[in-house]
Amino acid sequence: MPDYDQLSLDLHSKHTGKLEIVSKVPLNSRDDLSVAYTPGVAKPCTAIAENPELSRELTIRGNTVAVVSDGTAVLGLGNIGPAAAMPVMEGKAILFKHFANVDAIPLVVDAATPEALITLVRAVAPSFGGINLEDIAAPRCFQVEAALQDIGIPVFHDDQHGTAIVLLAALMNAAQVVGKLLSNMRVVISGAGAAGTAIAKLLRCVGQATDVCVSVKDVLVCDSKGIISRDRGDLNRYKTELLAFSNLENRSGDLAAALENADAFIGVSKGGLLKPEMVQSMAENPVILAMANPTPEIMPDDAKAAGAAVIGTGRSDFPNQVNNVLAFPGIFRGALDAKAERITERMKMAAVHALASAVGDLSAEKILPDPLDKSVAPTVAAAVAKAARK
Amino acid sequence: MPDYDQLSLDLHSKHTGKLEIVSKVPLNSRDDLSVAYTPGVAKPCTAIAENPELSRELTIRGNTVAVVSDGTAVLGLGNIGPAAAMPVMEGKAILFKHFANVDAIPLVVDAATPEALITLVRAVAPSFGGINLEDIAAPRCFQVEAALQDIGIPVFHDDQHGTAIVLLAALMNAAQVVGKLLSNMRVVISGAGAAGTAIAKLLRCVGQATDVCVSVKDVLVCDSKGIISRDRGDLNRYKTELLAFSNLENRSGDLAAALENADAFIGVSKGGLLKPEMVQSMAENPVILAMANPTPEIMPDDAKAAGAAVIGTGRSDFPNQVNNVLAFPGIFRGALDAKAERITERMKMAAVHALASAVGDLSAEKILPDPLDKSVAPTVAAAVAKAARK
Repeated sequence: MPDYDQLSLDLHSKHTGKLEIVSKVPLNSRDDLSVAYTPGVAKPCTAIAENPELSRELTIRGNTVAVVSDGTAVLGLGNIGPAAAMPVMEGKAILFKHFANVDAIPLVVDAATPEALITLVRAVAPSFGGINLEDIAAPRCFQVEAALQDIGIPVFHDDQHGTAIVLLAALMNAAQVVGKLLSNMRVVISGAGAAGTAIAKLLRCVGQATDVCVSVKDVLVCDSKGIISRDRGDLNRYKTELLAFSNLENRSGDLAAALENADAFIGVSKGGLLKPEMVQSMAENPVILAMANPTPEIMPDDAKAAGAAVIGTGRSDFPNQVNNVLAFPGIFRGALDAKAERITERMKMAAVHALASAVGDLSAEKILPDPLDKSVAPTVAAAVAKAARK
Repeated sequence: MPDYDQLSLDLHSKHTGKLEIVSKVPLNSRDDLSVAYTPGVAKPCTAIAENPELSRELTIRGNTVAVVSDGTAVLGLGNIGPAAAMPVMEGKAILFKHFANVDAIPLVVDAATPEALITLVRAVAPSFGGINLEDIAAPRCFQVEAALQDIGIPVFHDDQHGTAIVLLAALMNAAQVVGKLLSNMRVVISGAGAAGTAIAKLLRCVGQATDVCVSVKDVLVCDSKGIISRDRGDLNRYKTELLAFSNLENRSGDLAAALENADAFIGVSKGGLLKPEMVQSMAENPVILAMANPTPEIMPDDAKAAGAAVIGTGRSDFPNQVNNVLAFPGIFRGALDAKAERITERMKMAAVHALASAVGDLSAEKILPDPLDKSVAPTVAAAVAKAARK
């Protein structure tokens, strides 16, 4: 394997980061200056002052998303702070541009509290057509995203919903491969943070219309202490809320107990947590989506040896790479195209279905399109925009 | 004259604003993705977490400035709000790129109070290598800029200091043309807002070292009620502070009274305020820098007929266009190159001298370089960076 660490350090150092901000208009003459800047620029300014909606047509708001992070949960590195989070946000921005021609600007912010972050995003909203929240620790990410749904532009926490959308598409296609109905499947989620919570909600169609979403039979969510159940006395508000729609039989115990006779495992937790004997205890033809990065909850070969029928990971060096890049560029492209004011549950499900359908020839080794397939984002965008306009 | 209003509206509408955010790195293969994004990106992240200084080398901070406005004083349009201010900020950003290869991103913010704006800029500072404050009303602009000098990156309010720097360079060269010493000149400033206050300070070398700055003999600052003097009972804190270094003879009266025997008029006020008879009452060979836009305080032909020896305006259709674009791109370029933590008074004076020297063949019709001359910004940048490193 190439030495990605050194190559990445060299790349970032050579270019001083990864983004450049360039002009789309000419600036070669006094006339150019008079049109793009003063005195001509006063006209679009007054047009927007008279009709604020025009800011999406006359300024970069129409095509620009801010990738906002407080640096409290960066990759697997934890709370490394805003300045150190910047390379990830720049990376996200180049993916936005590459896959969906969305202009994205990283905005890392020093926010001591969720309230400070909320106030800040509200204040900068007039600059952007959307806000992609990124790498914000749970549970503050829930509070922040919820508080920002009324600001008039889409606010989307990718670590929650982007991940959930791609995982549900993967699970839908895996269910097809193993010949099971989603509505009969019991799913165990390892990890009760941002991603685990969002995928649990989406699997159970929380807030979704019944015409677009089919709920799985049951979901068990496990954190580091075991299954989230009514018997636990240590649950925060957000974990308690999971009990409204998960663990319908009120089971208790550890991850191994949760997995007995389960149909699918979704890992958004820590490398190596899933042991072969746990896979062996699952129902026939189990589906394993082990997203811990860079080391999955179980390595694909071990999962296969233990009887897994379909295996996906976050890694590019195994089949079935489950990667958020399959969702977020198309979702924001669609939202911007439709001038959406928020990303609704219906828009999220439209993304799930579009993504699941984009796979082409479905097989145990191919439950999702290739993350580098540039045809995916336009497909997702069209479906999301259509759902937004409804 | 072309219909700049319609042309500008068409230009902004056609392109959805003026800026585009593009990648500086390739993204064509899985390896590219692994270097620019995960897993490689973790390495620059941890490098910055260990040594925060590296964020200027490994991220776009090293070359990026935010153009920040609350939209309270946009061009001559007044308080039109953040969304409507965006076209101006985008215009500024393309000038940064064109003249100095500085990546600049507009950030218009909804900030009800100066304190809110200060808090916001502090919070976003980890994203940027500098902050260009723009179109913020006086007196809040003074408070905001002063409160942000300790955030570790340069914070510069262009309407104050950019304007003052270009005007002082213009006045120095005009003094040469008319054969007067700056130290013998009495200057009247019409306008006591952001620009008027800053130019008054710079003309009187407030905060400047004596080896780089020569003070004019006296400055009279006039607001809409007349000369700012000790006899006035209606002065806010910032206007009162002007009395520490202006109006040394404590004169009172209106603009006409101020101009009797004055050597120079600097207008940062309103079109048409300066009457020919006022010019006639000035000292021999008066210098007129009439910056009100688009209509200057006096039209050049009228000023000339009344005896003005040197006339500058903000307009491109007359000689001696005094335009901030001669200063801010080079100033930030120099500050970024030197990794400066602030823009010091010495750096500002270095910009003044570099700009005044860049004029070439000095004459009454040419006291400043052409605003489109791309050789100016590098000259200013080199001087500013040198001053920063001292």
